[in-house]
Amino acid sequence: MRLTATQLADFRTQGFLILPELFSRAEVDVLRAEAARLFAEDTPANIREKISGEVRTVMGLHLRSEVYARLCRHPRFVEPARQILGTDGLYIQQAKINAKVAFTGEAWQWHYDFATHHAEDGVPEPLALNLHVFLDDVTEHNGPLIFIRGSHLGGPVATALDTQTTSYALWTVDNETVAQLAKTGNLVTAAGPAGTALIFGDCLVHGSPPNMSPWGRSIFSVILNPIANAQTRFARPDFVHHRDFTPVVPLADDCLLTAPARVTT
Amino acid sequence: MRLTATQLADFRTQGFLILPELFSRAEVDVLRAEAARLFAEDTPANIREKISGEVRTVMGLHLRSEVYARLCRHPRFVEPARQILGTDGLYIQQAKINAKVAFTGEAWQWHYDFATHHAEDGVPEPLALNLHVFLDDVTEHNGPLIFIRGSHLGGPVATALDTQTTSYALWTVDNETVAQLAKTGNLVTAAGPAGTALIFGDCLVHGSPPNMSPWGRSIFSVILNPIANAQTRFARPDFVHHRDFTPVVPLADDCLLTAPARVTT
Repeated sequence: MRLTATQLADFRTQGFLILPELFSRAEVDVLRAEAARLFAEDTPANIREKISGEVRTVMGLHLRSEVYARLCRHPRFVEPARQILGTDGLYIQQAKINAKVAFTGEAWQWHYDFATHHAEDGVPEPLALNLHVFLDDVTEHNGPLIFIRGSHLGGPVATALDTQTTSYALWTVDNETVAQLAKTGNLVTAAGPAGTALIFGDCLVHGSPPNMSPWGRSIFSVILNPIANAQTRFARPDFVHHRDFTPVVPLADDCLLTAPARVTT
Repeated sequence: MRLTATQLADFRTQGFLILPELFSRAEVDVLRAEAARLFAEDTPANIREKISGEVRTVMGLHLRSEVYARLCRHPRFVEPARQILGTDGLYIQQAKINAKVAFTGEAWQWHYDFATHHAEDGVPEPLALNLHVFLDDVTEHNGPLIFIRGSHLGGPVATALDTQTTSYALWTVDNETVAQLAKTGNLVTAAGPAGTALIFGDCLVHGSPPNMSPWGRSIFSVILNPIANAQTRFARPDFVHHRDFTPVVPLADDCLLTAPARVTT
């Protein structure tokens, strides 16, 4: 799979791409079935909401699941990432599902990914790409990602560590900066049916509101980073920021549908 | 101003009407200038957010402002209300502005207006109409009202008093009921530019998410209730539920633009 010249130009100017139907219903069904199993596990790699105790993020996915190990190496993710970054030397920096349970899923503050990976893990440059696929239909009502279009264009903006708002410490962008960026770029809701994919860069400012709707929404995310740009500090657990710099090699296009059925013991 | 047969039919089946551009930019400017003055007043009729202390709701408007006294009697509100309810005997039950300050405006839980006015004030039947006009552009991003289409059709659903979630005690609808109603009717974002009006009924379930955007949103609301259906309990302050049952008489269509300029002393 190759991005078109228009898609590449859009990515450069907007900072993101929304790719409807990148994954089929059958592929989403495989991912959803496997997600249910992973959410039920009792592990520190499952981060819980402060208030409700519901699982908010399931981390370290490619080490916990053959299906998600394959998804991280899916050619519909890896090939566009190689194309955008101009290198085949990419590794898996983070692989997770962010869930927002119906009625209770909490907000993600305004932030960009590089701020946290730079401050916490010493990633040198804002090169990594965040690749998502929706495991549920995502609408304006169930806590979608909101992108500030073009907010990456000036490079990394100032951030501060927020350990209070939610159960996951995050380097966030202040209100004044968000207001200034949104005035120029406006806000874009990243919505679409299950199977829709997103690609966005390490400096794109985004956030997401709480989910007050009766519909849960889970989104898979893999961050691919150039090996030459790997972390230089190793303080956080591996499931938050992986330290295996083996290059990702794309699998066959049908790799999700041929994944071996899990043997239940 | 008369609603069309289609609008009336839509109101009956959906439970609400969205009327873009019902008020002009010039009229909105008059309302906004006056709102700024009212927000700055130090009075118990200005309800504040629990966390930020920002004014969340400005109540008792028609007793505090000539401009808003006129808006409550505006023919573009009163005539459709008379038409829908089939009576000229309507009084002002509540007149307020609900604000959601940029970045900090809090949610309104899922509720319908009648539950609170029935439980707290002894209003007998769910007949009152809630008429809104947007004082700011309202989008999916800055905490719009979300309607559950058709949620009024079965009559009042069960509610419970929530005194915890926000700074305003409200009789709210439980998650299971919301899920059931939304499955049938889906969710509708009530968005539109400043000057857009809404009309919705006393049993329509609605809520609104927090405002994480950099854009504030204020919405004026007047509730008109048939005098024959007036409150039977008088425990809450007058600014929350008015006890003057004088019938509302519509003014001239240009009444906002001819309102006397306020003399600043």
